[in-house]
Amino acid sequence: MNILVTGAAGFLGRRLIEALLQLGSLTDRHGQLRPISRIIAFDREPLQGMDDPRVQVKGGDITDDQVLASLIDADTDSIFHLAAVVSSQAEGDFELGMRVNFSATQRLLEQVRLLGTCPKWVMTSSVAVFGGALPDTVDDDQVWAPQSSYGTQKAMNDLLLADYSRRGFVDGRSLRMPTIVVRPGKPNLAASSFASGIIREPLNGQASVCPVALDTRLWLMSPAQAIANLIHGHELAGERLGKGRVINLPGLSLTVEQMIDALREVAGDEVAQRIQMRPDPAIERIVGSWPGSFSAPYAQALGFTADKEFVSVIRQFIQDYPPR
Amino acid sequence: MNILVTGAAGFLGRRLIEALLQLGSLTDRHGQLRPISRIIAFDREPLQGMDDPRVQVKGGDITDDQVLASLIDADTDSIFHLAAVVSSQAEGDFELGMRVNFSATQRLLEQVRLLGTCPKWVMTSSVAVFGGALPDTVDDDQVWAPQSSYGTQKAMNDLLLADYSRRGFVDGRSLRMPTIVVRPGKPNLAASSFASGIIREPLNGQASVCPVALDTRLWLMSPAQAIANLIHGHELAGERLGKGRVINLPGLSLTVEQMIDALREVAGDEVAQRIQMRPDPAIERIVGSWPGSFSAPYAQALGFTADKEFVSVIRQFIQDYPPR
Repeated sequence: MNILVTGAAGFLGRRLIEALLQLGSLTDRHGQLRPISRIIAFDREPLQGMDDPRVQVKGGDITDDQVLASLIDADTDSIFHLAAVVSSQAEGDFELGMRVNFSATQRLLEQVRLLGTCPKWVMTSSVAVFGGALPDTVDDDQVWAPQSSYGTQKAMNDLLLADYSRRGFVDGRSLRMPTIVVRPGKPNLAASSFASGIIREPLNGQASVCPVALDTRLWLMSPAQAIANLIHGHELAGERLGKGRVINLPGLSLTVEQMIDALREVAGDEVAQRIQMRPDPAIERIVGSWPGSFSAPYAQALGFTADKEFVSVIRQFIQDYPPR
Repeated sequence: MNILVTGAAGFLGRRLIEALLQLGSLTDRHGQLRPISRIIAFDREPLQGMDDPRVQVKGGDITDDQVLASLIDADTDSIFHLAAVVSSQAEGDFELGMRVNFSATQRLLEQVRLLGTCPKWVMTSSVAVFGGALPDTVDDDQVWAPQSSYGTQKAMNDLLLADYSRRGFVDGRSLRMPTIVVRPGKPNLAASSFASGIIREPLNGQASVCPVALDTRLWLMSPAQAIANLIHGHELAGERLGKGRVINLPGLSLTVEQMIDALREVAGDEVAQRIQMRPDPAIERIVGSWPGSFSAPYAQALGFTADKEFVSVIRQFIQDYPPR
C-alpha cells in the first residue's frame, strides 16, 4: 500500500502515521489486505523525528499545483487528507482558509480524478458544518448551516467528495469529527482550542482560560478514538457506504462543567481551580453554533465507536503525555 | 439601479429583464427604491431583440475572469445570477458543469468581494440538492444529499453565498426553485425537460415522450410565479433573512398523472393522448431523487408565493405562447 497523509506534521497526522506503521497493513479498494510499503508524510513544515524507512517526508505549499502533483501517482492506493487551517484562523483570514481548506482539497481531488485510479480517500470534516436553530440531539438528516468560513469550507469539501465518489473518481469517506480532546502541546487558533486547554494546562500546573459558559455542551472524542475511527473509516468497503460518504461520527456529549468535574475527579480540586472563566463573545458565537450531541445512527451501524467516559480520556492523556 | 443579469438569453433571464424594465425600479440594499438605469444582460450568446435603451447586451464566456471583470464595477447595485449548465448536461460533462455552475459563481463572488461594495445578489438554486431517503414532504431542516453533479454544484454555491453574505461581502439570496413549467421553446438537456414537454408539445399538436412513471411527484412553479419570486427575493431587506440566505421556495406538488389530467381538462382528451410513456432509467434516477413536496415555512413567512392550481398554469402558457 502506498499512502499519502496530508497535514502529517499536525497532531492527528503524526499519530495516524505512527498507528499505520504499527498496524503494518491496510485494505485496498479491492478488499485486499496489503502491507504498507510507503507513506508520503506531507505538510507545510516537514514532519520531524519519524525515521521509519517506509516514511517519505515532504514539505511544501499545498495550494501549489506542482507540489500536489508530486504527492500522488498511479500507485497511490490511499489518501488521508487532514491538512487544514483551523477554525478561528479561517475566520480571521478568509482567503487563506478558502485556499487551504477548500481549493487545495478541490485541486487534489482533480488530480486524483485525472489519474483515473480511484484511490481510497479519508478526510476529516467537522461539526462546524451545522448551525442555526438545532435540536438538542442532531440526527443524520440535519441540514448543514455553517456559521463560520471553516464550517463552510468543510461542507463544500463534503459535497465535492460525495460527488467524486458517486462518479467513481475516488473512493471517499469524510468523517465529521467531534472536537478532539485532550490535544497535547500549545493552544492553537481553533475556536475549540480551550476544550483541550482547560484540561491540559491545569494538569501541567498552569492557569487556563475558559472562554465559554459552563453549560456549553461539546461533542468530544479522544485522540486515540479519532485515530481508530480514521483507520476504521479507511478499512470499510465502499459498498457499505450506500447512505453516503459523509458520516457524522459518534462521540461523547459533555458540558464544560462536566469536563471540569471529570478533571477534578482525576486530578483533584487544586488542579481544577486553575481554570479561569473569562467569556470571549467571538469564541462563544462560533462554538455555541455547533451541536453538542448527535445520534449518529449511520456511523454506529458502520461500526464507528465513541469514548465511554471522560475520566478515562483524561487518564489516557496523563499516561501519553505525563505532566512536566 | 445598475443591474447585472447573467444567463440573460435564457428563458428565465429574458422574462426577468422584461419584468424589471416594466417595473422600472428596485430597492437597493439601503432600502431605497431607485429607478433602474442600466441592466447588463450577459450570456454566452448575446440576448437578441431587447431594444430598451436601459439594456446593455454583452456576450462572452462566464468562465473567463476578464469577461467577469467587465460585467461589474463599484456602481453595480444588484446581480441576478441565473447562468448555469442544466442538470443532464452537467452530469454528462463533469468539467463543464463544475466550471460554469460552480467555478464561475465562485469567481464572480470573489470579484464582488474585492470590490467591497456588498451588492444585492439573487441566484437560483435547485431541489436537486436533495436526495437519498426523503420524507414525503421536505421541511427547511432537511439535509442536502445531491445525487447529481448539478445538485452538488448548486449546493456548493449555496454554501458560498451564505458565507459571503454572513461576512458582509455580498447581500445574497439563493432561491431553491421548483421545476419551472411550462417552459416555451424546445426541449433542453435538463433532466426535468419532459415536465414542460408533456404539456407544451401536445398543445402544439406534437407527440411527447414522458420518461418517468405516472406516479412520479414533481415540485412545480410557473414561469410568471418564478419571476415574481425572483423579484420578491431581491426586494426583501437583508435584515429579514436571519434564518439564512438559502430559501426553499413554496410550489405546487403534482404527480405526472395529475399534470396530464390537468392538460386533459384544459385541452381535451385528444391532446392528452399525444403523450407516450417511455421510461428512461437515467432520467428516472435523477428526477426520482428530487423531493416532490416541500413545506417551505421560511419562504412563506418571507412572503414568497406559489401557483394555486395547475390548470391555470396551463391556461397562462396557452395565452403567453399561443399554439402554432
